[in-house]
Amino acid sequence: MAETEKNFNIELEELAGKVPEYISERRYSDLKKILVEMNPADIGDLMEELPRENLPLVYRILPKELASEVFVYIDSDTQELLISTFSDNELKEVIDDLYIDDTVDIIEEMPASVVKRILKHADPEMRIEINKILKYPKDSAGSVMTTEFVDLKKDLTVEDAFLRIRRTAVDKETIYTCYVKDENRHLIGLVTVKDLLLADYQEKISDIMETNIIYVNTTDDQEYVANMFTKYDFTTIPVVDNENRLVGIVTFDDAMDVLQDETTEDIEKMAAISPTDKPYSKMSAFELWKKRIPWLLLLMISATFTGMIISSFEEALASFVVLTSFIPMLMDTGGNSGSQASVTIIRSISLGDIEFKNMPKVIWKEIRVAALCGVTLAAANFVKLLTIDRILLGNSDITVSVALVVCLTLILTVLCAKIIGCTLPMIAKKIGFDPAVMASPFITTIVDAVSLVVYFRIATIFLHIGD
Amino acid sequence: MAETEKNFNIELEELAGKVPEYISERRYSDLKKILVEMNPADIGDLMEELPRENLPLVYRILPKELASEVFVYIDSDTQELLISTFSDNELKEVIDDLYIDDTVDIIEEMPASVVKRILKHADPEMRIEINKILKYPKDSAGSVMTTEFVDLKKDLTVEDAFLRIRRTAVDKETIYTCYVKDENRHLIGLVTVKDLLLADYQEKISDIMETNIIYVNTTDDQEYVANMFTKYDFTTIPVVDNENRLVGIVTFDDAMDVLQDETTEDIEKMAAISPTDKPYSKMSAFELWKKRIPWLLLLMISATFTGMIISSFEEALASFVVLTSFIPMLMDTGGNSGSQASVTIIRSISLGDIEFKNMPKVIWKEIRVAALCGVTLAAANFVKLLTIDRILLGNSDITVSVALVVCLTLILTVLCAKIIGCTLPMIAKKIGFDPAVMASPFITTIVDAVSLVVYFRIATIFLHIGD
Repeated sequence: MAETEKNFNIELEELAGKVPEYISERRYSDLKKILVEMNPADIGDLMEELPRENLPLVYRILPKELASEVFVYIDSDTQELLISTFSDNELKEVIDDLYIDDTVDIIEEMPASVVKRILKHADPEMRIEINKILKYPKDSAGSVMTTEFVDLKKDLTVEDAFLRIRRTAVDKETIYTCYVKDENRHLIGLVTVKDLLLADYQEKISDIMETNIIYVNTTDDQEYVANMFTKYDFTTIPVVDNENRLVGIVTFDDAMDVLQDETTEDIEKMAAISPTDKPYSKMSAFELWKKRIPWLLLLMISATFTGMIISSFEEALASFVVLTSFIPMLMDTGGNSGSQASVTIIRSISLGDIEFKNMPKVIWKEIRVAALCGVTLAAANFVKLLTIDRILLGNSDITVSVALVVCLTLILTVLCAKIIGCTLPMIAKKIGFDPAVMASPFITTIVDAVSLVVYFRIATIFLHIGD
Repeated sequence: MAETEKNFNIELEELAGKVPEYISERRYSDLKKILVEMNPADIGDLMEELPRENLPLVYRILPKELASEVFVYIDSDTQELLISTFSDNELKEVIDDLYIDDTVDIIEEMPASVVKRILKHADPEMRIEINKILKYPKDSAGSVMTTEFVDLKKDLTVEDAFLRIRRTAVDKETIYTCYVKDENRHLIGLVTVKDLLLADYQEKISDIMETNIIYVNTTDDQEYVANMFTKYDFTTIPVVDNENRLVGIVTFDDAMDVLQDETTEDIEKMAAISPTDKPYSKMSAFELWKKRIPWLLLLMISATFTGMIISSFEEALASFVVLTSFIPMLMDTGGNSGSQASVTIIRSISLGDIEFKNMPKVIWKEIRVAALCGVTLAAANFVKLLTIDRILLGNSDITVSVALVVCLTLILTVLCAKIIGCTLPMIAKKIGFDPAVMASPFITTIVDAVSLVVYFRIATIFLHIGD
């Protein structure tokens, strides 16, 4: 039984350390006894910790049904390794035991030769279903759905429905929501097993079914589908084609995976990394470099514009070198203010809290926040400059005029940063880009340039540079 | 029925616009006809769009059971408003219809006077259950669980079990996983309704129940619990107390909410914002300021150290003003490289992909990535400086020595940034802080200082400043 997270991981590691011993001593049945008590997901974790040469043996020790369950939980490299050790018969057995959506998930990660081999050994009916799902665009509802669900006819009685569920349940991933189709395969209703349990055996499905059904289309984006789950607390959602025919269902566990993946993708984009499906621990240094370098290059080149702004004010800087020392503080504060706004807006967009039409409201709110933040920061900074820096540290270059220039710049920078930070993600969303790209690094680069121009303009005016 | 997201929102808005008309024309039954066809979550959304004075009336139009369902989906301000218009009887009816975990969620958001009123009108049994859940620490498994689940005895037959489920199902949030307790209320097994449907009526529960159960403790963190759902694809997970007695279950919909909330919290922390449960659209400018200003102030003050570094190299800068123009590029590239590493590591920690023990591996990987990135960036920059800047733009201040200084700094900055970016979050996690705080803004401030020191040191050596 599971202990706390820590103990549990330690147990898994200990076990992983002992498995090679069990194997070299041929204590297979002892090992089997331990494994069959474990959850398939944990056996999957265990297998990732094992030396690769032990994997096929450990996998074969598992009882057939458990083996197929475990197969879903191991990473695609290990799956590929195992498939390469399977005989055709073994492969067929595993595939027969898998749910169709899991098989499709596995296929999507395999090289073409393995895909061919899997499809060849799937039974014809399953092959047709797999191909159906494979033809939907990546990240669409169709591509994450399963075609294995319980469908009922509206004229059945509750008793008939139970018989049908009992007969077909073994092969279905979920049976608790049954969908009712008419003769043209249009979705006309749903009943839950709870409804059925609470109903009289002789009642008709048409009398107890729910007819206001929320469904998605095969081409809807998977993130939209996943958000339906969080909004409505569904365990499954039906998927219909363009003719409103029921073609499959998406289950909550796949929706949760989608949510996690999409969030990781957003976070990566916000940090200027090209998103990937692979976990960090599986990525090579070269792969990580490929995901990070395009953005670093792009942002480095953008930052040279900021450098050009500084160059063009070289004269001012030469006569007031003290101004240079405030550049990092102004740039960082601008960047931080901008990312606070952009990241808040990006997250609110993806949670459905705000939309493009809210833009005027959002900008007005950010202006007020910026005013509050800017004045607070400027006041704190003004006091600090004239007490700590000027009096305590004796930096006589910092005059009241210099302090005013810095603090005025601070207010204007925060204002620009917040406005840029909140508008860009919304505009990106509106014109069909991913708002997450408009996060910190991008905004920082723009805000840097803006803040420097503001800084030098104000300095030129207040300090009478060039007079 | 739901259309695509866009149309759907437009429909809701249109309807929200028409509701005041329906009310002023007293066409209550027409309005009711529309509402009863809608999903409770959508009615909740609709109510948030309505003028506040219409809310009590619209809510009273709903049939009683639907009204309680809708109540769960509206925001806490609106809930409070409605409660204030409820008679004691109405309040009692709503509470009686709610599931306990939903009631607790509502209570947690209400002011003390409203909480008192709710507890006063809950029936005594429910009040005991509510108080049980309320006593668990915030964000613990106990605080998100429900105590309404189906429990079975191991000696029951499948037929008895169905009778029990039928009898109690109406009041339970979920019935599809039933838990088996011994006479001391210890959790000893579970059966799903699917198992029951596939079993013979005369079989005993003890013969078909699963005995290897994954459970959580009441004091486990809710994020840990939510991660169990994504790992094991459960719909419910049992919660036990310190004596291993079954006290409740957590359902997948609450786990999904926890995941969403925790991710939002992480993202906010990464952007230097104090996290909040309130959606952006409900926050006032003043509340937003309170969440953002502490970090801005802290980071502004830290950035002054960077300024002090620049001041201490004033002499070098005065003789080589061209060096100043590369400060933004170096700082930004360092900051971006650092956040790429830190954000990747923070996300991997929260997804359970890496742990503290992986630190040496992670650092070694980041060093290699940094070397690749640093050299690429330096090479690109070197070429750009000596072709575009020096030859094309005729900036004769950029000598080969200056270009070398900038490019060498770039390599070392990226290296430091990646190492700092990957180690700080892991150390934070190890010593019990939230790794998410060690994200971009914090790392950027440190990396800024490091990169400037490196820059000026290298410049002093290569350009013989001060010789």
